[in-house]
Amino acid sequence: MHEYRTHDCGALRAADAGSAARLSGWIHAKRDHGGLLFIDLRDHFGMTQCVVPNGSSVFEAAEALRVESVITVTGDVVAREVGTVNPKLPTGEIELRVATLTVQSAADVLPIQVAGDAQFPEDLRLRYRFIDLRREKLHRNIMLRAQVVAWLRREMTARGFTEFTTPILTASSPEGARDFLVPARLHPGKFYALPQAPQQFKQLLMVAGFDRYFQIAPCFRDEASRADRAPGEFYQLDFEMSFATQEDVFATIEPVLGGLFRAFSGGKRVSDWPFPRIPYGEALLKYGSDKPDLRNPLEIADVTEAFRDSGFGLFAKIVAGGGVVRAIPAPGTAGQPRSFFDKLNEWARAEGAGGLGYIVFEEGGAKGPIAKNLEASRCEAIREACGAKPGDSVFFAAGARDAAAKFAGAVRTRLGHDLGLISGTEFRFCWIVDFPMFELDEETGQIGFSHNPFSMPQGGLEALNGQDPLTIKAFQYDIVCNGVELSSGAIRNHRPDIMLRAFEIAGYGAEEVEARFGGMLNAFRYGAPPHGGSAPGIDRMVMLLTDEPNLREVIAFPLNQQGEDLMMGAPAPVPPARLKELSLALALPAKKA
Amino acid sequence: MHEYRTHDCGALRAADAGSAARLSGWIHAKRDHGGLLFIDLRDHFGMTQCVVPNGSSVFEAAEALRVESVITVTGDVVAREVGTVNPKLPTGEIELRVATLTVQSAADVLPIQVAGDAQFPEDLRLRYRFIDLRREKLHRNIMLRAQVVAWLRREMTARGFTEFTTPILTASSPEGARDFLVPARLHPGKFYALPQAPQQFKQLLMVAGFDRYFQIAPCFRDEASRADRAPGEFYQLDFEMSFATQEDVFATIEPVLGGLFRAFSGGKRVSDWPFPRIPYGEALLKYGSDKPDLRNPLEIADVTEAFRDSGFGLFAKIVAGGGVVRAIPAPGTAGQPRSFFDKLNEWARAEGAGGLGYIVFEEGGAKGPIAKNLEASRCEAIREACGAKPGDSVFFAAGARDAAAKFAGAVRTRLGHDLGLISGTEFRFCWIVDFPMFELDEETGQIGFSHNPFSMPQGGLEALNGQDPLTIKAFQYDIVCNGVELSSGAIRNHRPDIMLRAFEIAGYGAEEVEARFGGMLNAFRYGAPPHGGSAPGIDRMVMLLTDEPNLREVIAFPLNQQGEDLMMGAPAPVPPARLKELSLALALPAKKA
Repeated sequence: MHEYRTHDCGALRAADAGSAARLSGWIHAKRDHGGLLFIDLRDHFGMTQCVVPNGSSVFEAAEALRVESVITVTGDVVAREVGTVNPKLPTGEIELRVATLTVQSAADVLPIQVAGDAQFPEDLRLRYRFIDLRREKLHRNIMLRAQVVAWLRREMTARGFTEFTTPILTASSPEGARDFLVPARLHPGKFYALPQAPQQFKQLLMVAGFDRYFQIAPCFRDEASRADRAPGEFYQLDFEMSFATQEDVFATIEPVLGGLFRAFSGGKRVSDWPFPRIPYGEALLKYGSDKPDLRNPLEIADVTEAFRDSGFGLFAKIVAGGGVVRAIPAPGTAGQPRSFFDKLNEWARAEGAGGLGYIVFEEGGAKGPIAKNLEASRCEAIREACGAKPGDSVFFAAGARDAAAKFAGAVRTRLGHDLGLISGTEFRFCWIVDFPMFELDEETGQIGFSHNPFSMPQGGLEALNGQDPLTIKAFQYDIVCNGVELSSGAIRNHRPDIMLRAFEIAGYGAEEVEARFGGMLNAFRYGAPPHGGSAPGIDRMVMLLTDEPNLREVIAFPLNQQGEDLMMGAPAPVPPARLKELSLALALPAKKA
Repeated sequence: MHEYRTHDCGALRAADAGSAARLSGWIHAKRDHGGLLFIDLRDHFGMTQCVVPNGSSVFEAAEALRVESVITVTGDVVAREVGTVNPKLPTGEIELRVATLTVQSAADVLPIQVAGDAQFPEDLRLRYRFIDLRREKLHRNIMLRAQVVAWLRREMTARGFTEFTTPILTASSPEGARDFLVPARLHPGKFYALPQAPQQFKQLLMVAGFDRYFQIAPCFRDEASRADRAPGEFYQLDFEMSFATQEDVFATIEPVLGGLFRAFSGGKRVSDWPFPRIPYGEALLKYGSDKPDLRNPLEIADVTEAFRDSGFGLFAKIVAGGGVVRAIPAPGTAGQPRSFFDKLNEWARAEGAGGLGYIVFEEGGAKGPIAKNLEASRCEAIREACGAKPGDSVFFAAGARDAAAKFAGAVRTRLGHDLGLISGTEFRFCWIVDFPMFELDEETGQIGFSHNPFSMPQGGLEALNGQDPLTIKAFQYDIVCNGVELSSGAIRNHRPDIMLRAFEIAGYGAEEVEARFGGMLNAFRYGAPPHGGSAPGIDRMVMLLTDEPNLREVIAFPLNQQGEDLMMGAPAPVPPARLKELSLALALPAKKA
């Protein structure tokens, strides 16, 4: 018989009754029932009820053990009596009659409990992560994460992608976020940087001719933590493909992401692919956001013209001043009490808006403060623009274009939630496409890049040379699920001539571009294929799949929000000799008085 | 037709003749044959011959392009004439008649060539790695590495292991090598460390109940580079399993490593498993090394007794002084000229030995300077101990036990090579087991740990309390292939009581142990399973499989031996503002005059 186990704790079934077995695991719970000691023995695979009869030579030893002690028990598998079968447990038809018991590891009094649903402060959970990880939900989340990653690897490989690892000790990247730095002992005064993303390396792999790359890539940003981004390190499904159009990228990754969500969402509905492609401008107009939650059926309409020179002076003035008015329908709310509208108005004021005007459409006409001052034909035009029916209301966001669009998006989201329109059992994907290449800095009047300067402009060099820069779109795209941006991506600009011209439009001379981005430019001078890709965030996808709002519930060993590992004690001071070796000295900020 | 390609450059066959096709790739070579321009178009998948007829509208454009330019060509697939079929190329039965040609990326004059076998300085190759990686051998090595990693993942998963990622920004580890440090901006004066190995985390995953863990794990050591270890970062197949004995670990990983070598060695012979288990003491005796190359059939014998009080005064004196004599057989060398023995003698002196004594066995008796002074019965005892036959010689290494063993090992290796006994088409695996737990420091007379203090001593607490410490073995093991140590591993000591006692024997008080290793001790106090594992090095396995002596030939983007990335320019100085943000100042060593 094996020293530790003949079966795992989830394996024994009725058919095993009558045979001898040995199990090892953690004492999940212990109950003394009149001379019988019941032990729920738990391991990674499941739970088995073990019984120690009173009078047994091991009874006392078993009774003295605390829960979470690790033991090995040997004995006969016995069918449970009919009334004591536990249908919730796969092993619930049997129990193990313990003949011998070996203590592998006796547990001290626990700082946090494993069994049960008690809540513990996060600091304590992180400090004792090795216990916390035994708890059912967290254990399941971490396993799901591992399975998601394995699934992604399998699917990417099946699509002809090869996983390459890229350097972690590398150079500072020009991408903008703050790098973590690593002092180079052998090169005093110099530093490596941890990669914010393997962006340059994956493009170099394309230039090197590897055709299709992916990596479950660790990325590092020395930025304040956010709800959906861990401090320090995070992982993305980084991929890139050569000789590929934007539509090729979409067609390749849609079945991977859609398939992933189908496989791991526990039966929730997932968008069919191809996913909708929504131009950036349309997304801002219809959803007031470049990461729209498509579960929300409400669509914003532009009703600027309905208010131009109208009797509703407030909006007419905004329109005359170049502003816009956006309308957000609220189906079936005409019958809501006044307090419904008042509450939304208060919320809007708290959000920094002047208020939240509305029109109520009833059989026989439009009602409410705005409708009073607006010609019936204009009210009708608004109703039509919104597709509103009698019984619906329509809310308004008015102001400068971008601000109004954004606020309309907030109203749409708020209404979607308040009216219960957002399904909790659905994953809705979309692509946002056609991002503008350039934008005008309102203050300086200068043209700058609006997003990624390294994306290929639509129309290429011809567009850059012949078109109003503010009308040029980029082959750049975001993939969005339920209002969460999983990733940006792009067809890259692989042509030095087009890149230099794009930077020239944005006000950068060739010398400056060569100095800052010479590495990539240089690589593109020896034969570079057209290529593009994206990098959906693993953490965010697992958060969506597990419905966890807190990142730390889907990472085995996360840093806390202050970037500390409370269990391992990181970060920590280092001895002066180590600093000297690195040719560094501390320059601590003066303590505040 | 797709914008870039209907086929890759390795796809077209005779059956495609008559159809139109579009290919994209790099101009590998270009030949002008009397009015026909031949282009070998290359991509990741293969090579296709493209022909531009003179008079074609694209002839001039094609002629002007440098090799390694990236182009897209469209035209008809045409069967080659019988005499021009290239049987070495999968696409060799056809060619593409180019009708249209688009330049995707024109190449400048190349710093290193892709086609051909010319050698280039390593600095230049590293600086232009994105070109170097297109060259056939390196491209193939990097693909093989990726396939090896994918294979390992699949096999480990099939054996019930789950891949978990462990933190990269973590705490300094107590393992001994030098950590890379990362300043923690939000915690002035404190530092993260990059993991030397995920040792503690993988053990914590076992404590957390995940049962079987693996990871293709990035590891970081700030140590000088070695031939078989890259400076900076390297990868290992890190794995750990709970409720497992040493034999379980072996039985689990043998088919993975053996199977890997069978799958990727291109038909070389690979050891059957179970691999031989060789106790550490036996390895030192028989092979003069704890990482023996078992392809070498020579086995060392101890012949100390044959020389005790013998007529060969030099060795007799060594034996009388407590030293040993080891004999290394050299089959079939009796007929070698004197110069053979002289050359070996010179080599031995260069190695720091006094010389290399020997006996030649011929029909009729032993010959040579030593045999002259040694009784025939003693010569016969030596012959028997070595299994030597007439026609063989035997060489001797005499001295203090460890030094003699080591030198005997060097002689064995040298003879194996010189006599052509080491097969170049074989991979021979073995386990080295039963490492001693403790050793005596000859200088101080103190007992210390001989290898890893965290391994479980064989016999547990009982052995520690009742046995001469120098006789205690550890459940620690190395896996060795062809004389290369792929990894150490161990059944871990998961019991705080046993660990404290082991450290006590090695002269460490409980307080010191708690202070230095309290994190792990603490984790073992709340229920820890018996567990063990290992971590075979990926780089070394790929080096063996590709028969590359240089690590940089099996890593896509390696640092050079000085730890620099010549392509990305790392490490690099950082602006003073960045240092200030990190509460650091440079403390550069004074320049040498």
